[in-house]
Amino acid sequence: MPEREDIEQLDQLGSEKTSYTFEYDPSLLETFENTHPYRDYFVKFNCPEFTTLCPKTGQPDFGTLYISYIPDEKMVESKSLKLYLFSFRNHGGFHEDSINTIVNDLVHLMNPRYLEIWGKFTPRGGISIDPFVNYGRAGSKYEQLAENRLFQHDLYPEPIDNR
Amino acid sequence: MPEREDIEQLDQLGSEKTSYTFEYDPSLLETFENTHPYRDYFVKFNCPEFTTLCPKTGQPDFGTLYISYIPDEKMVESKSLKLYLFSFRNHGGFHEDSINTIVNDLVHLMNPRYLEIWGKFTPRGGISIDPFVNYGRAGSKYEQLAENRLFQHDLYPEPIDNR
Amino acid sequence: MPEREDIEQLDQLGSEKTSYTFEYDPSLLETFENTHPYRDYFVKFNCPEFTTLCPKTGQPDFGTLYISYIPDEKMVESKSLKLYLFSFRNHGGFHEDSINTIVNDLVHLMNPRYLEIWGKFTPRGGISIDPFVNYGRAGSKYEQLAENRLFQHDLYPEPIDNR
Amino acid sequence: MPEREDIEQLDQLGSEKTSYTFEYDPSLLETFENTHPYRDYFVKFNCPEFTTLCPKTGQPDFGTLYISYIPDEKMVESKSLKLYLFSFRNHGGFHEDSINTIVNDLVHLMNPRYLEIWGKFTPRGGISIDPFVNYGRAGSKYEQLAENRLFQHDLYPEPIDNR
Amino acid sequence: MPEREDIEQLDQLGSEKTSYTFEYDPSLLETFENTHPYRDYFVKFNCPEFTTLCPKTGQPDFGTLYISYIPDEKMVESKSLKLYLFSFRNHGGFHEDSINTIVNDLVHLMNPRYLEIWGKFTPRGGISIDPFVNYGRAGSKYEQLAENRLFQHDLYPEPIDNR
Amino acid sequence: MPEREDIEQLDQLGSEKTSYTFEYDPSLLETFENTHPYRDYFVKFNCPEFTTLCPKTGQPDFGTLYISYIPDEKMVESKSLKLYLFSFRNHGGFHEDSINTIVNDLVHLMNPRYLEIWGKFTPRGGISIDPFVNYGRAGSKYEQLAENRLFQHDLYPEPIDNR
Amino acid sequence: MPEREDIEQLDQLGSEKTSYTFEYDPSLLETFENTHPYRDYFVKFNCPEFTTLCPKTGQPDFGTLYISYIPDEKMVESKSLKLYLFSFRNHGGFHEDSINTIVNDLVHLMNPRYLEIWGKFTPRGGISIDPFVNYGRAGSKYEQLAENRLFQHDLYPEPIDNR
Amino acid sequence: MPEREDIEQLDQLGSEKTSYTFEYDPSLLETFENTHPYRDYFVKFNCPEFTTLCPKTGQPDFGTLYISYIPDEKMVESKSLKLYLFSFRNHGGFHEDSINTIVNDLVHLMNPRYLEIWGKFTPRGGISIDPFVNYGRAGSKYEQLAENRLFQHDLYPEPIDNR
Amino acid sequence: MPEREDIEQLDQLGSEKTSYTFEYDPSLLETFENTHPYRDYFVKFNCPEFTTLCPKTGQPDFGTLYISYIPDEKMVESKSLKLYLFSFRNHGGFHEDSINTIVNDLVHLMNPRYLEIWGKFTPRGGISIDPFVNYGRAGSKYEQLAENRLFQHDLYPEPIDNR
Amino acid sequence: MPEREDIEQLDQLGSEKTSYTFEYDPSLLETFENTHPYRDYFVKFNCPEFTTLCPKTGQPDFGTLYISYIPDEKMVESKSLKLYLFSFRNHGGFHEDSINTIVNDLVHLMNPRYLEIWGKFTPRGGISIDPFVNYGRAGSKYEQLAENRLFQHDLYPEPIDNR
Ligand SMILES: [Ca+2]
Ligand SMILES: [Ca+2]
Ligand SMILES: [Ca+2]
Ligand SMILES: [Ca+2]
Ligand SMILES: [Ca+2]
Ligand SMILES: [Ca+2]
Ligand SMILES: [Ca+2]
Ligand SMILES: [Ca+2]
Ligand SMILES: [Ca+2]
Ligand SMILES: [Ca+2]
Ligand SMILES: [Ca+2]
Ligand SMILES: [Ca+2]
Ligand SMILES: [Ca+2]
Ligand SMILES: [Ca+2]
Ligand SMILES: [Ca+2]
Ligand SMILES: [Ca+2]
Repeated sequence: MPEREDIEQLDQLGSEKTSYTFEYDPSLLETFENTHPYRDYFVKFNCPEFTTLCPKTGQPDFGTLYISYIPDEKMVESKSLKLYLFSFRNHGGFHEDSINTIVNDLVHLMNPRYLEIWGKFTPRGGISIDPFVNYGRAGSKYEQLAENRLFQHDLYPEPIDNR
Repeated sequence: MPEREDIEQLDQLGSEKTSYTFEYDPSLLETFENTHPYRDYFVKFNCPEFTTLCPKTGQPDFGTLYISYIPDEKMVESKSLKLYLFSFRNHGGFHEDSINTIVNDLVHLMNPRYLEIWGKFTPRGGISIDPFVNYGRAGSKYEQLAENRLFQHDLYPEPIDNR
Repeated sequence: MPEREDIEQLDQLGSEKTSYTFEYDPSLLETFENTHPYRDYFVKFNCPEFTTLCPKTGQPDFGTLYISYIPDEKMVESKSLKLYLFSFRNHGGFHEDSINTIVNDLVHLMNPRYLEIWGKFTPRGGISIDPFVNYGRAGSKYEQLAENRLFQHDLYPEPIDNR
Repeated sequence: MPEREDIEQLDQLGSEKTSYTFEYDPSLLETFENTHPYRDYFVKFNCPEFTTLCPKTGQPDFGTLYISYIPDEKMVESKSLKLYLFSFRNHGGFHEDSINTIVNDLVHLMNPRYLEIWGKFTPRGGISIDPFVNYGRAGSKYEQLAENRLFQHDLYPEPIDNR
Repeated sequence: MPEREDIEQLDQLGSEKTSYTFEYDPSLLETFENTHPYRDYFVKFNCPEFTTLCPKTGQPDFGTLYISYIPDEKMVESKSLKLYLFSFRNHGGFHEDSINTIVNDLVHLMNPRYLEIWGKFTPRGGISIDPFVNYGRAGSKYEQLAENRLFQHDLYPEPIDNR
Repeated sequence: MPEREDIEQLDQLGSEKTSYTFEYDPSLLETFENTHPYRDYFVKFNCPEFTTLCPKTGQPDFGTLYISYIPDEKMVESKSLKLYLFSFRNHGGFHEDSINTIVNDLVHLMNPRYLEIWGKFTPRGGISIDPFVNYGRAGSKYEQLAENRLFQHDLYPEPIDNR
Repeated sequence: MPEREDIEQLDQLGSEKTSYTFEYDPSLLETFENTHPYRDYFVKFNCPEFTTLCPKTGQPDFGTLYISYIPDEKMVESKSLKLYLFSFRNHGGFHEDSINTIVNDLVHLMNPRYLEIWGKFTPRGGISIDPFVNYGRAGSKYEQLAENRLFQHDLYPEPIDNR
Repeated sequence: MPEREDIEQLDQLGSEKTSYTFEYDPSLLETFENTHPYRDYFVKFNCPEFTTLCPKTGQPDFGTLYISYIPDEKMVESKSLKLYLFSFRNHGGFHEDSINTIVNDLVHLMNPRYLEIWGKFTPRGGISIDPFVNYGRAGSKYEQLAENRLFQHDLYPEPIDNR
Repeated sequence: MPEREDIEQLDQLGSEKTSYTFEYDPSLLETFENTHPYRDYFVKFNCPEFTTLCPKTGQPDFGTLYISYIPDEKMVESKSLKLYLFSFRNHGGFHEDSINTIVNDLVHLMNPRYLEIWGKFTPRGGISIDPFVNYGRAGSKYEQLAENRLFQHDLYPEPIDNR
Repeated sequence: MPEREDIEQLDQLGSEKTSYTFEYDPSLLETFENTHPYRDYFVKFNCPEFTTLCPKTGQPDFGTLYISYIPDEKMVESKSLKLYLFSFRNHGGFHEDSINTIVNDLVHLMNPRYLEIWGKFTPRGGISIDPFVNYGRAGSKYEQLAENRLFQHDLYPEPIDNR
């Protein structure tokens, strides 16, 4: 189980007073140490409260992000992840671009073995957009894992009727 | 993140006045540049508001299209996709043919690495028809991807009772 | 059970060749005789394939209509109802107005004891609109029925998340 | 609990060899004695395997019947009800007429205090039809019950999308 | 909150060694004192593991019982209820009769202000049977409550397709 | 059906360039004329993209609003409603207060016969809050309607497990 | 909208350091002022993370509470409600008793016009228990409201199969 | 898109007067030309209105068929498929045998590259039977495809409780 | 299609008088000839009415069995399967052991190419147990099939909340 | 089937008096002998009543564990598993750490061929965390199985909206 010091290092979890930033800020992300690096395992974050602005019209967009990864030495702290995702609130970005950006930021932060994000957004004009982006560490078996998972992605699209 | 100019090039998104064409018109489709061509990733469009006419009886048909692709240099702009799908509204076509035509048009437009469409229509005479068509760029690994995904297609048909 | 002649009087059911009109035409509606006028009973039509055009933008709109009524002497024939609903296909109308119009047309056609329509449309700009309109024959107990049903309407809105 | 003789009087339940009639035959219906006539209570039959023929086109139709009643002295035996419903298999009838006929036959058979049937059929031409017919013994409080239940009927139509 | 002695009086809850009877035995039922008799409130037991034998064929039948009541001075102890329901396991009884019997036994046991049971059984021959029986103390307002609840019973039959 | 002029009066629907305000601004609301004032009927807006800030912590909150009303002379235009709801985006307010405020603003805007809003928010600390607020025009039968609907509100809470 | 001071009075919301008590402690409950006392409206708390111990066996029990009320002058603060519900964690109590106790504590705290709680617990021995308790201020119309809502309670038990 | 003549060749679609055969008749099946033979793609027919008779007892059986195939030169016309499936209505056959027979008939008709049928029937005696049969053209890669799909079949049986 | 004689050989199907055994008896199982042995195909039995006794406490247990197999020469007759499963009714056995026993009995009976059973039981003490056991004929490709299917088993556990 | 002695060795199942420990205690776990070690098969435990404390804030957390394994010689007894999981009740641990700890404890206890646990927790701050951890015996084919199952994990995240 985690050492007491390790818990103490987390700034955000249980912190007294949090202030929220609504402009894109990847510096909000924090990590803690993986205490089980001797095995591969998955951690998933379900994030149904993601919102951005359309970069052209300025209109708010809404989506759910499913973030899944195999950690190496570092893990992203969940409260800091929340703050980071909040920082997209008044930021303009296309859905495909936002998801790619978050993948890049989390890879830079944690250097994970593997990471993937599936974004599922609400429709505009009767059509909704769902990007899926993943990453596997270059030169490792996880690089092949990324291609395999991408190539098996979403053979069963969920039923959507905009209601 | 996308350059400002790139956003400006999109005719349809946020445009002032849109007129709608209800006869098949693939020239309505527009593209924008993929800002993350360095990786393979999927984009899916959920399109539950697709309608055509039966080519023999003239009766309206209704379906949902699930369009998924791995972009290369170009991506289809979602508002132009909406207009293109609207252009089938008073156009006659069998379900199997419409889906094949849309695949061909989107492949011609974007030259994607991979693309697939699953159409799910409402029943006539107690039977509904669901075509699934895909494409992988010839001579690339995506050609094999297309066969693999087709050959794994729909091992779990969704329950249908026409209600 | 219905007499043979009564069945013969229906033009549309099983007719050889149907042509479809996509401009609003209430003259498409036909009736047949209620063979059980000695009792009050309900008939409901589930109509998930209703589409119109937005009167201002011309953009296609999509909805499901639930039409329920207590017949008196006449009943609306279901195939003619289908053709009548198809006639809204290229016609412009706000949702609230379309539903009121259909109520008025069916009341004029059948002179039913009671009739109600609930329309449920797909969202535009993240918001969907669901009108509910009903009618009870003036001066009868069905007039009070209409008010009672309206006043009990939709105490449990169905969950909507635009997906 | 029921006497042994009462059980013995049922022809159909557990009978050795059943033959099936596929033309409308109300004489198939059998009753047994209600052993709890001192109280009002409901019995419901869920019947999802009902099929008839369209009286004009001859095409098979399919529906689910929900039959509910408050017995008086007699109760309908469920196996005989099954055989009776099977007898509509090759019989032509409109949905509204079939449900009214079944109500009339069951009322004639059992003389129940109250009885209701809700039929829910699969769509033809994109529209499905759901009749609801009920009966309360004339001159009793059940007559008012029938009107009350009819007048509260189906304030929440179930979602239907023909899939 | 309940006194310690009251808890001690319950034989079955947490008892060391339970033996199970599979022939109908209402003496298995036990009560404990209602510590909140100053108000009317409901307690519901969801019992999805009820099974009996068909009295004519001997074939096992299966159902779910929903038992709801307003207690007066006594409440039925849930473990003793479980044992009582188990006692129907190898006992023959028609569905309508079993539910009436359980209502009678629980009324005799607890003398509740109000009690109701809805049984929902699995189909035989494509038809399933769901009895609903209730009771209100004679001469009290609960007698009227029983009629009111019966007369409002099941206006929305749950969808059943035998799968 | 609505006159052409009436449609022209709507500023927001189909307007060329919309700018979005994220601070509470009831002046964004616009109306159009009810063309069917001769009858009572309901219009419901499903609004699953509502977000505010917690007034104490500043943390984003998310909810779905179900807005239902019986119009009198004026109706709220749906695009202006969207903009008004967007104006809560960076505004601080408790859930109970936001819903009461929106009720007050819409009543002031339209002077409807009846109006109600049910807000359903996502949990904080494992508990979610769902306010329901309604209004009936004072001194009319709609005042009694409001009490009746409130007093029948939510007898069947939807199942919530925070997933 | 609420005054700034009113927000400041809340101890728990956004407080720096919370300590959790796992023995029943009604003093944890806090109130804030209802800023809309001029109208009746409902507030519901969905609480799916409720757990206690069985008073006889000591085994953990789990349930979901649905708490709904019409406030008068005071409203219960949601974070303090969370802490209060946590205080049942290592406390022994039968389900019926816990719900009655919480009703009593909240009535004592807020003096609401009306309040109700529906508890839904997981099964032990194949049977689950769901108490429903409500309260209306004595001598007011809310006293009658409480009886009316109790007497209409749960006419449609949710399907339960213990999976 | 299909040539006009090809559409004209279809006898059944939109034909004036259809007569229905209720004894097994594979000659009812018709084909039309595949206009996209240059690629492999799937077409699925959802057929929830399939009924036969038990060959021993004569009792009606009911099922849903999911028919999926990769066409070669010919495709089965959907109205003729409907008539062919209707022809099982008064025909006796075990479920496993009916599905194998339909596979054989469709293979003989179309000479498809690949074809599969999953039948899902309603229960008799508490047990339901779901056969899955497939075919791949001998000596082609589709023969291996058939084995692969069979060997991956139904790793996740749908939940069944006979209700 | 099956020969008449083959149908006549089945003892149980449609037999006049069935007696039920509630102690484990594998001799109840009967077979009939597979008329399509030239191909591999799957047959699944959905069996939601399985019940046994706990071997230590004697308490009834309840589960659903999903039995799937690829027949060789013989197939298990479904009514005899029902009687065999009934024979566990008053028999004591742990869940893991019952499923292994049934697999062994069916393999011994039919000598199938492949067979698997997934049992899903209701919870005791808040935990439910779901065994999955399969078999492939030794020395054939079906032996490898068994390992492959086991090793891919249940990557997506169904959501369970004991309600 | 299991020998009588083997059943007698289980301390917890049916034991007279159980006391519950709410501090982490792996010594509570007990095993019994696998009577079918000659084949690989899966046993799954569905555990929806898991709760711990957050190690930093002390706040209760709630989750569902899906535990699946292929036994070798020993199997974990389900009542002892229940007591072991209860022992996390007042113990502090991050979700990722708890799941890894339970995997390690069960591997140490049973020396299984393969084991996996998927934890699904309720959200804090709008985000929920779902760890998935597995194990395959080193140097055996089950080690490769563990990697294969991990690498195929959760390609279809379940929809989460925190309600
Ligand atoms: Ca739908
Ligand atoms: Ca939907
Ligand atoms: Ca939805
Ligand atoms: Ca169904
Ligand atoms: Ca359906
Ligand atoms: Ca549907
Ligand atoms: Ca069902
Ligand atoms: Ca739940
Ligand atoms: Ca179920
Ligand atoms: Ca359930
Ligand atoms: Ca079911
Ligand atoms: Ca759940
Ligand atoms: Ca469940
Ligand atoms: Ca949702
Ligand atoms: Ca939920
Ligand atoms: Ca949910």
